[in-house]
Amino acid sequence: MSSARYPGAKPSLIVRKLHPENQETPIHFITGDEIDHKMFYRRNHFSYPTLTYSNYWLPINGSVVSPRIFSVQDILKLPSRTITAVLECAGNKRSLFEPKVFGEQWENGGISQGRWKGVPLRTLLELTGIQAGATEVVVEGYDYGKRTDLDNIYTYARSLPLEKALHPDTIIAYAYNDQPIPFKHGYPLRLIVPQWYGMASVKWIKQVSIVDSPFKGPFQSIDYMYYPNKENDNNSFPVTTINVNSTIQRPLNMEVLDTGKHIIKGIAWTGKGFISKVEISTDFGKTWSYANIMNQDQERYRWFSWSYEWVVLEKGDYTIMVKATDSHNQSQPTSPFWNRKGYGYNAITKIKIRIE
Amino acid sequence: MSSARYPGAKPSLIVRKLHPENQETPIHFITGDEIDHKMFYRRNHFSYPTLTYSNYWLPINGSVVSPRIFSVQDILKLPSRTITAVLECAGNKRSLFEPKVFGEQWENGGISQGRWKGVPLRTLLELTGIQAGATEVVVEGYDYGKRTDLDNIYTYARSLPLEKALHPDTIIAYAYNDQPIPFKHGYPLRLIVPQWYGMASVKWIKQVSIVDSPFKGPFQSIDYMYYPNKENDNNSFPVTTINVNSTIQRPLNMEVLDTGKHIIKGIAWTGKGFISKVEISTDFGKTWSYANIMNQDQERYRWFSWSYEWVVLEKGDYTIMVKATDSHNQSQPTSPFWNRKGYGYNAITKIKIRIE
Repeated sequence: MSSARYPGAKPSLIVRKLHPENQETPIHFITGDEIDHKMFYRRNHFSYPTLTYSNYWLPINGSVVSPRIFSVQDILKLPSRTITAVLECAGNKRSLFEPKVFGEQWENGGISQGRWKGVPLRTLLELTGIQAGATEVVVEGYDYGKRTDLDNIYTYARSLPLEKALHPDTIIAYAYNDQPIPFKHGYPLRLIVPQWYGMASVKWIKQVSIVDSPFKGPFQSIDYMYYPNKENDNNSFPVTTINVNSTIQRPLNMEVLDTGKHIIKGIAWTGKGFISKVEISTDFGKTWSYANIMNQDQERYRWFSWSYEWVVLEKGDYTIMVKATDSHNQSQPTSPFWNRKGYGYNAITKIKIRIE
Repeated sequence: MSSARYPGAKPSLIVRKLHPENQETPIHFITGDEIDHKMFYRRNHFSYPTLTYSNYWLPINGSVVSPRIFSVQDILKLPSRTITAVLECAGNKRSLFEPKVFGEQWENGGISQGRWKGVPLRTLLELTGIQAGATEVVVEGYDYGKRTDLDNIYTYARSLPLEKALHPDTIIAYAYNDQPIPFKHGYPLRLIVPQWYGMASVKWIKQVSIVDSPFKGPFQSIDYMYYPNKENDNNSFPVTTINVNSTIQRPLNMEVLDTGKHIIKGIAWTGKGFISKVEISTDFGKTWSYANIMNQDQERYRWFSWSYEWVVLEKGDYTIMVKATDSHNQSQPTSPFWNRKGYGYNAITKIKIRIE
């Protein structure tokens, strides 16, 4: 019975699965461009690995000129690069597909953004050298386990084409928002691959191998493939670059509001290029207006915040639609590209609200 | 780079709205019968009130013989009653209605359970006496604010018919799971009305008034009414008793599983009576089996945990359905009772899974 307390209301991660841990960012309730690591979405394929930090080394081997093993200290001494980038789970918005697809039912929060600091993978590969004929770089994590569809144990591993691996913004990161990377997000070292969906940004790096033939691990030959057909694997192709996309943060879907002035706001992002316009319709697509894009600095890899001031005097039900377009003239499509594993959903963003 | 850490994965409340705060219990990840207060769902209509605890008094007035004002200390001295009860938001599962209805899109977590200790409201009303002609007891909370549909400021207030108010298990609670009620759940005093949906269990009680005509506050004349028609208010009737219902906690909807043995588990509950059977179908309702009900002590007000061992050898997609029946022979219906504000959803519980 002491003095009054004024409790705030705080959002938390939104659980999709605990074993392995998969939790969404409460994206509708996030402000700012650098998400606190506690609110960063968690997408794991296996249990968390157990690392012996005191013995941590990063080997780079395979089709290199001279294999090397780096300590974290070695890496910290190299020239660093800092990248603010969207990381988006390829399954973000999976729950919106119709017909529904199996897998974690991500809503809109399989996306986060922050500042990663590390060393370009390129810098390390220049130190080891690359043999002629090398085509891909395989990055393997310490996380491993059994899949429902195969009998063996697999580690989480993914390859990058040499060109992407050598891009100066593809980094081996050791810090997030000025702190060591939190364990759940890949401590001590994780890959950050801007422009690509998050599955490429391997956490808890165990080793890097240069190969001269296509890597066929299940996380790029079975998962993270677009399968356009329900019943067979015809015409499948790999998930790579992030699709142009947007999320309406406010109002919330199915919210009931007063007549008057409302701010419609959200974020838009894309893999290649930058967001060039965000259009908004409050009459189910009959007419469209431009939303105001906040950070028009054309900086790559970041999301763009946008807002639109809407004055609504007539009571009734409304559908609000948002369509983002990027500098390569890619726009969110009217219908999503349905695929059996539910990746890359980016249809025009839609919510319904009621004005009363 | 010190020693390894072994991070656990923990669920949190699932945010629906922050102002006012509405967050769901992560019900699929809850074990046990007494939910920690931090995982108890929060359903507020307004901002949290600011109370002066040092000055807190509970007045009981209106059609009483002698109005009284109780201190919390007075109430603590009276004979107590402890009730373990399901509290369920009337809007629980609202997001499942088709066509969709407006309002907070509660999934399955607008439900929690724990042990409330307090004094029967009846005990206090016996001390004040009740005048002849009294018909209802109005309980008003300290929370107040503006509604989107009306101009005035309203406090959150609800009435109970005299008979329900005088039921010895309708209590003015001061403790939850042996601790003072957390502020967010109604400290220092809240009403607990077993068997009724949660809107009846008014938090932060400001006063109790006996009245002799039907109370018409908006939280029972506009909200918390079943409106069966989309376009008009015909045939509306109030939301009161919790419908027989169930939730499948595992597997998760749209989960992908191995062939072999799986435990299907969940909870079932009802307002009047107790759960008498839980039936389960793994073939879209063609055949049904009985699930094993764990706590068959027929104790009122609690949910019943159930489980079913399922051996599945054939790969493919399955629909799992669960139908609970209570001791009044009420069963979950095949189709939900659609109503415009989306209350009381209790259709047969259904998930889809894939075996691969």
